[in-house]
Amino acid sequence: MLKIVLVGTGNVASHLLAIFLETKGIAVVQVFGRNKEALKAFSSYVPTTANLENVVPSDIYLIAVSDKAIATVAKTLEAREGIVAHTSGSVPLEVLPQNRAGVFYPLQTFTLGKKLDFKTIPICIEAKTQQDFNTLTNLAKLLSHHVHHITSEQRKKLHLAAVFANNFSNHLFQMAAQLCEAEKLPFELLKPLIFETAEKLHHLSPKEAQTGPARRNDLETMQKHLTELESPLQRKIYQLLSESIKATYEKKL
Amino acid sequence: MLKIVLVGTGNVASHLLAIFLETKGIAVVQVFGRNKEALKAFSSYVPTTANLENVVPSDIYLIAVSDKAIATVAKTLEAREGIVAHTSGSVPLEVLPQNRAGVFYPLQTFTLGKKLDFKTIPICIEAKTQQDFNTLTNLAKLLSHHVHHITSEQRKKLHLAAVFANNFSNHLFQMAAQLCEAEKLPFELLKPLIFETAEKLHHLSPKEAQTGPARRNDLETMQKHLTELESPLQRKIYQLLSESIKATYEKKL
Repeated sequence: MLKIVLVGTGNVASHLLAIFLETKGIAVVQVFGRNKEALKAFSSYVPTTANLENVVPSDIYLIAVSDKAIATVAKTLEAREGIVAHTSGSVPLEVLPQNRAGVFYPLQTFTLGKKLDFKTIPICIEAKTQQDFNTLTNLAKLLSHHVHHITSEQRKKLHLAAVFANNFSNHLFQMAAQLCEAEKLPFELLKPLIFETAEKLHHLSPKEAQTGPARRNDLETMQKHLTELESPLQRKIYQLLSESIKATYEKKL
Repeated sequence: MLKIVLVGTGNVASHLLAIFLETKGIAVVQVFGRNKEALKAFSSYVPTTANLENVVPSDIYLIAVSDKAIATVAKTLEAREGIVAHTSGSVPLEVLPQNRAGVFYPLQTFTLGKKLDFKTIPICIEAKTQQDFNTLTNLAKLLSHHVHHITSEQRKKLHLAAVFANNFSNHLFQMAAQLCEAEKLPFELLKPLIFETAEKLHHLSPKEAQTGPARRNDLETMQKHLTELESPLQRKIYQLLSESIKATYEKKL
């Protein structure tokens, strides 16, 4: 039985608690967080504390707090036995001062209250020692079929790639929604297209899946589209992404 | 029984033939296309012809050819009885010279050989007369639960929105894949994130779903990301999309 103290009371902590609670071989012995109000949501399931001195001994202290707070929080746990691991995509392992330190990064976007199938979520593991790497890997394998050894350098790039794949694509969906709204068209119209755009990647690489006016260098349609866009920022985005698509396929020749 | 002559032998024509063949109340009486080689794939299912003079009488002539060719193809069918309708997102209805003209636009991205659930695909209908509008609507309702009356002006904007939602987001996926590749990381790692980014829209609007450094105005992370991006074009895209995300939420205040 792996004992875990979960540190943090945000969105990621709440998703991790939910999956830990339903997974055999894991015991969440405590949730530790500064925000007493937020702790309340956790206290129906496990013991909680807002007081560092009351933090109980554990095999793993799993830090799920904002990137900026990780180093500070880790420092307060410096004297503890057990592994201290954070769950961030962009913070290097070295930020943790202890020797028994690791990273346990589930590569997914978590929505409060929306349950996810953890088995499909890639979990990226890193640790300062082989033994702790093995322990964190074993923990991850209890949750997911996709456990990977990813270095801090790789994780940094992976996190950057995730910004393109998730944050930026979502923003494009938002711009599309805005264009619909301006014509009093329901955004629902675009949802099957959006789902299929993602779904397609089961069958084709994004490079193979690319379609549209920029892909076929259809200057006439692109020119028309630019005149239809009222926002100068949207026009710039249209131009830049079209230029980038064209450049991608010209390189191929 | 609605008789249809399908005009064109490309990707959309092939998807339409497949769904028409399995739908009661629809009879594809012929496929008409200039490309004899491409016609072969259709000839195992329905009569085909490459010769305009041999095109048989029909209730509907459904044109699924490239945007640029629609006007020319429609002109060759001018003397026919029956409705002439095109399937394009960006071509106005007026491009069709006949009075009995319409638009039958399935808003989806079609991949050769990949079957889709047509019931979920929005079909956008427009016609010059009420009667033909009704006929095309009835045809669409045989295939899909989502049939909409969309004007040429609206369809133009919808098609533009689809470029953002599909073409551009796919390009972002491709950039993410490229960043993975450079670190020898499998693109598979990002797929659950991409699927969830789309899936989330069942529960939240894209405006609500937005996360990431630009959303929380995390200048430090954004600055780090910019130094990690080697391609100047990718840096420009990162900056512009981040700027656009920030602007979206500043407006809200």
